[in-house]
Amino acid sequence: MMADEKQIKQLLNTAKGQIEGILKMIDEGAYCIDISNQLLAASAILKKANVEILDAHLHHCVLYSSENDKARKLEEISEVLKKVMK
Amino acid sequence: MMADEKQIKQLLNTAKGQIEGILKMIDEGAYCIDISNQLLAASAILKKANVEILDAHLHHCVLYSSENDKARKLEEISEVLKKVMK
Amino acid sequence: MMADEKQIKQLLNTAKGQIEGILKMIDEGAYCIDISNQLLAASAILKKANVEILDAHLHHCVLYSSENDKARKLEEISEVLKKVMK
Amino acid sequence: MMADEKQIKQLLNTAKGQIEGILKMIDEGAYCIDISNQLLAASAILKKANVEILDAHLHHCVLYSSENDKARKLEEISEVLKKVMK
Repeated sequence: MMADEKQIKQLLNTAKGQIEGILKMIDEGAYCIDISNQLLAASAILKKANVEILDAHLHHCVLYSSENDKARKLEEISEVLKKVMK
Repeated sequence: MMADEKQIKQLLNTAKGQIEGILKMIDEGAYCIDISNQLLAASAILKKANVEILDAHLHHCVLYSSENDKARKLEEISEVLKKVMK
Repeated sequence: MMADEKQIKQLLNTAKGQIEGILKMIDEGAYCIDISNQLLAASAILKKANVEILDAHLHHCVLYSSENDKARKLEEISEVLKKVMK
Repeated sequence: MMADEKQIKQLLNTAKGQIEGILKMIDEGAYCIDISNQLLAASAILKKANVEILDAHLHHCVLYSSENDKARKLEEISEVLKKVMK
């Protein structure tokens, strides 16, 4: 992975901590909307990590890919776009 | 929370396990696109949990809310819609 | 519809004008990314109109629905949430 | 634009027709949720057009871009991803 490994792991650990927090909220009988908001916050962090990873991927792996590899790498990007725009 | 607690906790534990898996993938130098796909999968599970929670919330907490509470509860739903449609 | 009719129609006419503009851009051989950006702009306007409509719907039609109607109206909101969070 | 021009224009004309239909629905006092559903349908069509355009762009313009142009083109794709994953 070409993205800043430390930053990505920090984001993922934050998201993981939030999910653990949500599991605890559920046990403590928290209000649905508070749980829902925490879920949206965790999703936003995963999305941020994903954007960073794809950004670095485009600026390194795809940019410096060999001629042989380029078509496949761009096809992969197209597949990602299809998934996130679904 | 009015949603099926067992199901929601299962979904959250799955998402948590996926994030742990992604952290491991990063340490093992996995390919960016594989990491990105796993992140999308984890996000999809959090979204599924959120939809279940909001669905049960609407069918219980909002439906059976007192007249005093109804306006505030519908305002909360409107806020959720604004966030997810942003 | 309970939302501000004038504002919603303005938003829809703007989106329609943008789509007409995009059709023209295509005929003139515009650059893919410029077309893509205009499409995102038009989608954002439709989304804004939709948020306004749903917000007014929650604050009027759902809030003041009869007891008989309430369950069905909340089910409709749940269906909307499922679609937009898909 | 490298995408199938005829198909894209057909999608855009469909979306435009749907927006005209929604404007009419508003005048006729249609139900909020029916209008909202039509707005989601129009948005889905714009998204489909956008995916087609970006897919063709990646498979042509980006794949066959000169060395000089490649970095800028990949930066553009990164910007699109940031917008759609926001």
